[in-house]
Amino acid sequence: MASPEPISFARGAPSADIMPATTLREAAQRILGEDAKGALGYGVGSGYAPLRQWIADRHQVEPERVLVTNGSLQAGVMLFDELVEPGQPVVVEAPSYDRTLLALDERGADLLALPLQSDGLDIGALEESLAGGARPGFIHTIPNFHNPAGCTLSLAKRRRLLELAAEHDFLIFEDDPYAELRFDGEILPRMLELDTGDRIVYASSFSKTIAPGVRVGYLIGPPDLIATITRAAVNTYISPNMLSEAIVYEFCRSGAIEESIATVKQALRARRDALAEGLRGYIGEDARFVLPEGGYFLWVELPEEVDTSELHTLAAERGVTFVPGRDFMIEGGSNALRLAYSAVTPEQADEGARRLAESLAALREGAPAA
Amino acid sequence: MASPEPISFARGAPSADIMPATTLREAAQRILGEDAKGALGYGVGSGYAPLRQWIADRHQVEPERVLVTNGSLQAGVMLFDELVEPGQPVVVEAPSYDRTLLALDERGADLLALPLQSDGLDIGALEESLAGGARPGFIHTIPNFHNPAGCTLSLAKRRRLLELAAEHDFLIFEDDPYAELRFDGEILPRMLELDTGDRIVYASSFSKTIAPGVRVGYLIGPPDLIATITRAAVNTYISPNMLSEAIVYEFCRSGAIEESIATVKQALRARRDALAEGLRGYIGEDARFVLPEGGYFLWVELPEEVDTSELHTLAAERGVTFVPGRDFMIEGGSNALRLAYSAVTPEQADEGARRLAESLAALREGAPAA
Repeated sequence: MASPEPISFARGAPSADIMPATTLREAAQRILGEDAKGALGYGVGSGYAPLRQWIADRHQVEPERVLVTNGSLQAGVMLFDELVEPGQPVVVEAPSYDRTLLALDERGADLLALPLQSDGLDIGALEESLAGGARPGFIHTIPNFHNPAGCTLSLAKRRRLLELAAEHDFLIFEDDPYAELRFDGEILPRMLELDTGDRIVYASSFSKTIAPGVRVGYLIGPPDLIATITRAAVNTYISPNMLSEAIVYEFCRSGAIEESIATVKQALRARRDALAEGLRGYIGEDARFVLPEGGYFLWVELPEEVDTSELHTLAAERGVTFVPGRDFMIEGGSNALRLAYSAVTPEQADEGARRLAESLAALREGAPAA
Repeated sequence: MASPEPISFARGAPSADIMPATTLREAAQRILGEDAKGALGYGVGSGYAPLRQWIADRHQVEPERVLVTNGSLQAGVMLFDELVEPGQPVVVEAPSYDRTLLALDERGADLLALPLQSDGLDIGALEESLAGGARPGFIHTIPNFHNPAGCTLSLAKRRRLLELAAEHDFLIFEDDPYAELRFDGEILPRMLELDTGDRIVYASSFSKTIAPGVRVGYLIGPPDLIATITRAAVNTYISPNMLSEAIVYEFCRSGAIEESIATVKQALRARRDALAEGLRGYIGEDARFVLPEGGYFLWVELPEEVDTSELHTLAAERGVTFVPGRDFMIEGGSNALRLAYSAVTPEQADEGARRLAESLAALREGAPAA
């Protein structure tokens, strides 16, 4: 039997058709004509200055609060290098982004994982922990269209989190790469915007609004902390990628980024809709999920007895892949899975859901692979 | 009095006129047409695959020995993260590249600094140390057109160093960003080429052959070590800069890199000649230096009583800057200075030498600033 065309819900990456190759190419042409010296010289550790300024303007902060980095993962890693000594208590979400959990764990952080609800972090659980004596140095949260959980932190919870940060003297690491990809519901203010007490370190990226290959992310935070991390960055790589940052700058300056975001959002909405409808149609109530209002990911919880690592094997045999929930949890998650709809067509999303249902049925029947 | 036009010998960077903006722009055009998917996607931690292959071919090694990185400083830093535990003995050259010394020191390496001679590392001093019980994990050496010392490791010493590495079981970190910039004398084989026992970890970069702003460097070494460092790289930044690496690849593939190297070498030779002649003419025998056969740097030793930090102040007042020798030494270097001729015109090199002579005279007379 011929294998079916493989469908991957595994990787949180955009498909090539929604990456703006032509406009980026034009931006590269213009900037290498207009500022070859800036694009090709060493530059400075804080990043290509016009891009740093553009980001500062977009977030209405002073440029000295901004550090442009080689992607936002590296921004987080450098932040952790500064803030985390072995034994440092840190609050994380359960589930959360696997690379963040790994980076914190590698640095010896004492992780306190608190559950997510349909409107984001369980603030009650946080309050209980704090009342019980927890003293986190910071809390890591992905407020919008969570990776992997798909949920969004409500406005009330954003405000409450800031109050708690002030009361218990911790920082909030607002890890927000998907913010601009909202295709449903109301835009909520960033905690960075609500903050009045320098409690927020904010990270975002152009990976989802332009393309991952540009590897440009950034950190916004208190100027002293940003200056310290900038010195560490200089000692690691002298300066981030000037050529790529110059191209990204010109792409943003020209307004092409707004078109790119519109294209991406339209595609993502159709992909999410097809996936959600497929899951409802083929699996039904056994597939519980929060419908994401933006971003890349849909997190499915199956009935408790389903082991999604086993399901993964059966699904792979049927030409569909995903990431089992356990990868995003310090413990638990065995009946959950993350579906990234960012790189599939609506037709593939539907067919992928159908194959998942078939795999689930096979798992339940203990049947051999098709 | 109007200040004279400032002349900087301080930073090891090329001037804009020898960076290939137009051909890079053309390379960007072509690659964003031909492989937008590769240039804009996440890619892999080991770098843009065609560039990795190109580098492997150029050095006649297998691609699994190559890791493409965001500049070669980061390659070294990641290597140190893997090899250096606090207390790890490491041999370095005196003087040496300040950022390397800092990175090793920050990781708690126990640095054994051995002097340089006109033909590179003092191998006798190394043999003595080894005989005396030194057990370095590795030795850091800049074999060609040393930064800051300008000297080149002789072929006999390259061979002897490899013998010692085998005998005493240490690695050699061959840090070689200037290799392709030889404009005088005979090309010497890299230790990477002479090695038969997997003793070499080699680092180089496109910063000097194309432009620093592309931030593309690489590491070549034993496959296991490269695989380990690649995993650490993925956990730090997912993948290096695909856009920039794709452009660099296309630039190399098209042959433009050979033209670029020829342009750079021709310019550097003229700059070096003007500087060396200027120093001989204006300062004379008090300025002792090894005439570099390539690269960016000329290291000057002045008579012992001259403090080049004091000279630096007087020189700055006369519109010429350099880096005092102390910055490149764990101890000593107070009468030395590093002159980078990479970014000055021959006319500026001559005038800069004249101002240095004037500053030296002022220092000796204890005269106030001009």
